[in-house]
Amino acid sequence: MSNMKAKIIVTPKKAVLDPQGKTVQNALEHIGFKGIKDVRIGKYIEVEINDMDRETALREISKASHSILSNPVIEDYSIEII
Amino acid sequence: MSNMKAKIIVTPKKAVLDPQGKTVQNALEHIGFKGIKDVRIGKYIEVEINDMDRETALREISKASHSILSNPVIEDYSIEII
Repeated sequence: MSNMKAKIIVTPKKAVLDPQGKTVQNALEHIGFKGIKDVRIGKYIEVEINDMDRETALREISKASHSILSNPVIEDYSIEII
Repeated sequence: MSNMKAKIIVTPKKAVLDPQGKTVQNALEHIGFKGIKDVRIGKYIEVEINDMDRETALREISKASHSILSNPVIEDYSIEII
């Protein structure tokens, strides 16, 4: 039982168009950044958790990622607990 | 010279209020997630780069993070090149 930090990264699935990423790619090329193949934009969510064991935290965060933090139809997520 | 992936995480600075994070915290508590201390929401940007050496990539990405990908007044960023 200790304090933990969960880091969740939510990204659009590979098959999903990412117009925001394309816009950022254009902006980067515009300021002279050459050789960019692709840009994808996602969300980063950091959750600080009090007094919970690691296993419970991972289970709760997985549930939350699937139900609230991402849209599983068009997004993937990855979870890291530290 | 090889293909690389840069992962940039942009988060609001600690001193900056994060109402989006607060909203997510409330939503998580609403579905029964107990013991959350804080939630911060940031952006995740993944840039695929062709044929560049690691040092140049890091320099270019740092420049881009500072000028385009983040607002250094209210946001911090971290860069990982893989």
